[in-house]
Amino acid sequence: MDQLQDLLAQLRQFVAERDWQQFHDPKNLAMLLASEAGELLAEYRWVPSDRADAASRDSEWRARILSEIGDVGIALLLLCERIGADPVAAMRAKLELNRTRYPADAVRGKSDRPALK
Amino acid sequence: MDQLQDLLAQLRQFVAERDWQQFHDPKNLAMLLASEAGELLAEYRWVPSDRADAASRDSEWRARILSEIGDVGIALLLLCERIGADPVAAMRAKLELNRTRYPADAVRGKSDRPALK
Amino acid sequence: MDQLQDLLAQLRQFVAERDWQQFHDPKNLAMLLASEAGELLAEYRWVPSDRADAASRDSEWRARILSEIGDVGIALLLLCERIGADPVAAMRAKLELNRTRYPADAVRGKSDRPALK
Amino acid sequence: MDQLQDLLAQLRQFVAERDWQQFHDPKNLAMLLASEAGELLAEYRWVPSDRADAASRDSEWRARILSEIGDVGIALLLLCERIGADPVAAMRAKLELNRTRYPADAVRGKSDRPALK
Repeated sequence: MDQLQDLLAQLRQFVAERDWQQFHDPKNLAMLLASEAGELLAEYRWVPSDRADAASRDSEWRARILSEIGDVGIALLLLCERIGADPVAAMRAKLELNRTRYPADAVRGKSDRPALK
Repeated sequence: MDQLQDLLAQLRQFVAERDWQQFHDPKNLAMLLASEAGELLAEYRWVPSDRADAASRDSEWRARILSEIGDVGIALLLLCERIGADPVAAMRAKLELNRTRYPADAVRGKSDRPALK
Repeated sequence: MDQLQDLLAQLRQFVAERDWQQFHDPKNLAMLLASEAGELLAEYRWVPSDRADAASRDSEWRARILSEIGDVGIALLLLCERIGADPVAAMRAKLELNRTRYPADAVRGKSDRPALK
Repeated sequence: MDQLQDLLAQLRQFVAERDWQQFHDPKNLAMLLASEAGELLAEYRWVPSDRADAASRDSEWRARILSEIGDVGIALLLLCERIGADPVAAMRAKLELNRTRYPADAVRGKSDRPALK
């Protein structure tokens, strides 16, 4: 069995055992996802851009980052589960669209933000 | 090959072809993730809780929600890729922790927010 | 002296006494603002839409909401201070634009999200 | 009349003329605030920390930043208005608490994140 399918089955059981489906409407789960993404963001709040890779290797820091990544991922899967969406298919479709939107030759080495003059 | 591994390989290639690794430090990717989670949140902004499931089935609405889910998932995978984290392992570890933190018998039918009196 | 100006002066002194200007570049402050907005969001995460007003009156709950509102407001003011922006002028300009964008007769009783059929 | 009070009166009228009070329960407004904070965040997404001040002075970029600051501020005021909270009092109370929590002598020059070794 696919590891993501296995995790989804475990999440489904976790929620059912706690009778939490009643709280898990898609609006609430989108809020859960955004607030967990905010907690992950907070971990990188004061570190300068050029030290963010090193911060992600610091063992205590990394433990907190992985914990927040776990929360964000779980929130995303719970939302997908609730609305019957396949997260991998959604990502694949978006990647396909981004390939068309951002042709490699046109955007190479440029972000979608204006460069400073 | 696992479907998530396959998607990760495609994402890696997408970024490399555009020379975007330079923008993808973990701080920036955490910002990408939070801003995409904010866009997904916006889709559920004005719908009442008890109509959020129906909204998620409306075809036009659903297309936008799936598009945002794709963005959030991609941002999460890009961050994991950058810092060398396994997203499924992070979710599994967090689920395991949550099983201990929220024993089914203690929290059944209760959210972690105070009930209104 | 205007109460907002007075608060700004106090914030400036608070930051200077702690030598925190070095952490307060606009990128970091935008992250602070978004993560604090995520904490405020979390307070309303599990409450249904039609009980959110009552939740905001519950005394313990209200104390946490006010605390998060304080954090969000302070983050916004710190960002404005750093980039030399006038928050009230920015809000006024946006309200003026919204008056044009959303003429009362055209949008009365409608949100900017699609109605469910 | 205080400029913030004046703006609040205008916001109240703007909402009433559009009959939008029905959408503005506190849960929805917390979502509005978080999604607008996400849009502001997106403006600083790809700029390195040490160029974020310069980006905030670039005229086109600045216009978008001010527009998002306006949105975030308006969302915060709408929430305060809805729940009967005084935003300046909430900020003052939080600043007072932060003075106690972070004594200048103890935290001078340190962020609340672990330093990299």
